[in-house]
This record gives sequence, structure tokens and C-alpha cells, in this order.
Amino acid sequence: MKKARLDAVVVTRPADMFYLTGYGGDDGAVLIGAGWTCLAATPLYGEHAHRDCWDVEVRAGRLSPGIAAALKGRGVRRLGAQDEHLTVRAWHELEAMIGSRKLMPADGLVGQCRLVKDDREVRMISRAVRAAEQAFDVLFRRGKGAFVGRTEHQVAAELDYQMALAGADGSAFPTVVAAGKGASQPHYRPTSRKIRCGEPVLIDWGACVAGYHSDLTRVVFTDTIPAEIGRIYEVVAAAQAAGLKAVRPGVKAKSVDRAARDVIAEAGYGNEFIHGVGHGVGLEIHEPPVVAGRSEQRLAGNMVITVEPGIYLPGVGGVRIEDDVVVTARGRRRLSSLPVDIRKMVLR
Amino acid sequence: MKKARLDAVVVTRPADMFYLTGYGGDDGAVLIGAGWTCLAATPLYGEHAHRDCWDVEVRAGRLSPGIAAALKGRGVRRLGAQDEHLTVRAWHELEAMIGSRKLMPADGLVGQCRLVKDDREVRMISRAVRAAEQAFDVLFRRGKGAFVGRTEHQVAAELDYQMALAGADGSAFPTVVAAGKGASQPHYRPTSRKIRCGEPVLIDWGACVAGYHSDLTRVVFTDTIPAEIGRIYEVVAAAQAAGLKAVRPGVKAKSVDRAARDVIAEAGYGNEFIHGVGHGVGLEIHEPPVVAGRSEQRLAGNMVITVEPGIYLPGVGGVRIEDDVVVTARGRRRLSSLPVDIRKMVLR
Repeated sequence: MKKARLDAVVVTRPADMFYLTGYGGDDGAVLIGAGWTCLAATPLYGEHAHRDCWDVEVRAGRLSPGIAAALKGRGVRRLGAQDEHLTVRAWHELEAMIGSRKLMPADGLVGQCRLVKDDREVRMISRAVRAAEQAFDVLFRRGKGAFVGRTEHQVAAELDYQMALAGADGSAFPTVVAAGKGASQPHYRPTSRKIRCGEPVLIDWGACVAGYHSDLTRVVFTDTIPAEIGRIYEVVAAAQAAGLKAVRPGVKAKSVDRAARDVIAEAGYGNEFIHGVGHGVGLEIHEPPVVAGRSEQRLAGNMVITVEPGIYLPGVGGVRIEDDVVVTARGRRRLSSLPVDIRKMVLR
Repeated sequence: MKKARLDAVVVTRPADMFYLTGYGGDDGAVLIGAGWTCLAATPLYGEHAHRDCWDVEVRAGRLSPGIAAALKGRGVRRLGAQDEHLTVRAWHELEAMIGSRKLMPADGLVGQCRLVKDDREVRMISRAVRAAEQAFDVLFRRGKGAFVGRTEHQVAAELDYQMALAGADGSAFPTVVAAGKGASQPHYRPTSRKIRCGEPVLIDWGACVAGYHSDLTRVVFTDTIPAEIGRIYEVVAAAQAAGLKAVRPGVKAKSVDRAARDVIAEAGYGNEFIHGVGHGVGLEIHEPPVVAGRSEQRLAGNMVITVEPGIYLPGVGGVRIEDDVVVTARGRRRLSSLPVDIRKMVLR
């Protein structure tokens, strides 16, 4: 704030508000100045705010008057706001409300703090990984019957349910279950089509625990392994291993992407790996650091990222393998422990 | 567009993009001018766009060049954009990209079209209602055992799972299960606390089918009915009946709110009904029309809204009863068919 010459910042991104105060509302605002913090909570979250955010000043009520009251008498002339989160309309409303004070774009300040997790945060992400893995195990151990003849939606919904039974507060994002050709779309949405015996099934899922997310991807085989999918599986597995190995403190995030991408490009599938190799994960499912070709961000201890290379062949199918890792003092520790070996991914 | 003197509009809100083209991506842009439509899809959704949006021109690739190419040679000088959806950052990026063309706030144009549903849309919302009701029935018929001794998270997750088994594509929003005092918070989030025998349980849930949402709320009783909750239940039920009865074409939305609010105020709980009585529901879970005290919007045939009065007593609990209705030529048709009668809400 000092560097940007701001007297205060108004924080509105839900994950940032939660990080700073424990406030779990979707709307509201946290105001931070030199030596003071104030939470303006909307009426629907008022009771929650008074209970959970006992260590900050809470003003519950309509948002605009709450923000105006919080600023009053604090000597704020330059106020930062989150221009990557606020809509144009909301920005103008805020501007109209703060009178002669100047509203400045100031996104990323809280995001910078959130980049490096503390040990409790890493534990929460680990718990979210464990809940996701336990749910996967339940379905996998049931074998083909848990997949073949059921719709993609149903498999996704059962995975979500099993995560809740395993202690998750919910799913980290809408679970992806993509059978056969569907897996060629990285952001596939499950359909009401029944999974057929013989189709590989790509599953991209994660759990949420105490606000923290996990994010995993595996491909399981309902029968024999189709030759072409088997080939790209081995390439992706090797690329993921290379990417994981490249994770250590001090390196730029782009070098992790490069390590995985080189393996895929060498195998001739460079154009079929159409996204960055990973992203930070924590209070949001996608958060800094970006782990892609242009990311100059240096990794540091206690950052948590995904490593998830993939190969996508339209009309054929796709493979992506994803794990979550925490950067340690000397290297990395994989938070997930599901096997990658293709022979272990065939359902009985 | 003519009235606002716009040569074209760039639509970025996901539900609006889906409504116009069938595109299911989160990011992308639909450009509409006089006699032309173009969809700029991001690479991750490229295959999907080419398959599902066969009747519009699709440009898949990086978003900015896609939008620039779509505008080229169309004679666009004034371009409308969605200022209630675009972030300040995205707006400025768009502004930088379109050169000397002028970017104008133009939100709500597609929203106006979406206000009145066509018959297929009403059918899809009905199917979403049915999936939600079937799931509720499964749990309700299992009786106390489906609630008592299980955590709020687990009950919510099982309801979600049962909706998928009943044909839903997913949940319409994070399912709320609030036992005992928790129900005094309208936007309560389920916890890992086990539900105790004797606690009323407020459930606010809905399904999503083919992009369309349903939204229901009921309170079930795990044992006897606590006296104070029983009292406010009857008030809320009467208020909901009054609200539903006020729904008909030609009336202002605020009169529906008023009809329900009067019943609650007369019973002495006016200050404990802290939200509007309803909202439109369709491709988004909350969409126009707003059904609250200041809404001058007139209702018209084939609008679909929720009617959901509530009374919230901090430290005690709360009751909300919610159904979805479609405005008909002469009145309204309730799309949901779950009972409201308190005697039918006691679990065995």
C-alpha cells in the first residue's frame, strides 16, 4: 500500500475477504488502512460476520453506507480497489460513493500475500487432497460397475457424494467425468450419456475443506487400453514426472511448464498440449502463481501448485494427469498419492 | 440496439452467450450486429463451440484477436458491452483492442429477452423442479435416519447425488442444509456438525437441467415441532400463499412482495423478513425480474419466478418456504408440487 501511495484498500474478492477476516459472504467489503481494518457485511451475512469475524470491526447493513461510514474520519484520500474483480458498474457506484477521494486500481495486493501458504493452509489443502483421493478409491475399488452403464453425470455426482462422506465441505469445482472422445476437451462438461465398456474415462475432481481446494485428474480404463490412448498416456505420465521434478524454490514457474512441454513436444504432440501446465491452488481453485510458458514468477517454499500436462486429440480422446505439490525448502512434496502407472488404472 | 444507437454488442456473460448461441464456455464473446453474429471461443472450448454452435460463425483462438477479427470490416463505431459483467480490467483491455471504436455500457439487452421464457424453457425448468423434488422425496421417505446423526454437509451431498440420479445435470447452486439455529441465516453454509434429533432442518436446493435451474426451500422436522418455529412456520406458509396468489400478468413484481410481507408484518415479524420475496429463475439461479419492495417490473406470461418469504430469528432458527411459479395468461401455475402443510413435513 505504501509503495502504491494508497491510504486504504477496499477488498471485495470473496477469497481475499475470507483470507483477511474469515468472512464467508459472497458480497461485502473489507477495508484496510494503516492500523485499522473494517468489514462491511451485507444484511444476509450479518449474523455470520458478527460471529466469525470477532477480531475486526463489523458494520452490517447496506453495503454503500457501510463503506462510507468505515472511511469517515480516517483521512483516506487515495483508495485502492480490485479492478480485476469489480465490475465496471460496481466500480462506478463505489466511485460515486466515496466523494472526492480517488479510486485507484490496486489488484493483487492480497493475492501476493496468499501466494505463499502457511503450514496450516498446506494442511488444509492436504486434507482436501485426501478427501478427494478417498472418494476416488471408493469408486475405483468397486470396479467397472461404478462406471460402465452409468451416465457421466451420475459418476460425477457419486464422486461428489463420496467426497462429502470423506469429510469434504463440498466439491472444489464442478467435477469433470469425460468418457471416450469427450476427454479431448480440457473443459468438458459431463453429459447424460452412459459410459460404455472399453471407453477410457477422464476424471478431473477436487474437494473443498475449510475453504481450501484440491485438484486432481486421472484417467481410468474400463476394459483394455486403446492403443493410441495408451501411447499418449505414457507421454503425459513422463511429462508430468518431468514437470514435478522441475518444481523447486527459486526457479521460475515457466521452467516447470517447459520441462513438461519438452517431453510432449519431443513425442510429437506439442500442438495437442493446449494449456499451461498448472496453477496455484488454495482458497481459490485457480490462483497465482500461473504455471505456464510466460510466467516469470519465481517459486518459493510453501507455494502450492498443480502439475497437469495433457494431450488432446479431437475425435479420439485425451489424457491429463494432475497432482498437487507444495514447494519445500529443497524441492517439492507431492500432496497426492494416487498411482500414475497405467497398469494400476485399469478397473476390474 | 437501435434505441441505444449501437452498431454491435459484445456479449460476455456466460448465460447470455449460451442463450444466444448454445456456447457453454465460461469465457468467450458473442458479437452481434445488424444481421450478423459471431462467436469468439477460447481454445479450451474450441471443439465444443464448433460442434454445438453450428449456426453461427465461430472463431476459436485467443480471445482478443478473435474479437478484433470479428469486428473488422463491419462498420462498427459504437460497440456496446456488459458493464455489469465485465471487470474494470477486462473493460480496459477490450477498449484498448477496439481501436478508435467507442465502447458503451449496454447491459441488460439480452437479459430483457430472457425475462419471458418460451415453452421449451418452462419445460426445462419444470424438469429441474421435478429432479429436485424426486431427490427430496427419496431422503424424506427414508425418514429421520437420512438426517439425524449425519452432518449437514453429508445430507447436502446426498441430496445432490439423488438429484443426479433423478436426471439432473448437477445442482443449481451449493445446497443449503441448516439445522436448528443455523436456519436463522438466509445464506447459511452447511457445516460438519451432526444434525440432532429434535432440530428442524431448513433445506434450500435446486437442480440444473440443460442449463435451466430450479430453486426450492422446505423445513423438515426431525421430531416434535418446537413451538416458536411452529408459529413462524404458519406465518411464512400464509405469507407464501398470499405471495403466490398475487402472481398474475400485468401486476408489478413489488405487489407480490407486498402481499407476502403484509402477512408477516401483521404477525409482528416484519423486521425478521430481511430479503425480497423472490427472483426470476432460468439459465441463472438469480436473474430478472427482481421480486422485491421496489421492483416496478410488470409480470407477464411465461416469466418464471420464485416466491420465498422467510422469518429469521437469530439464536433461535428460521423458516423459509420457496416454490417456483410460471406466470400464465390469467394467473400462475406452481411448477413445484411438494406439500407446504407443516403436518406433512415431520419425518418418521
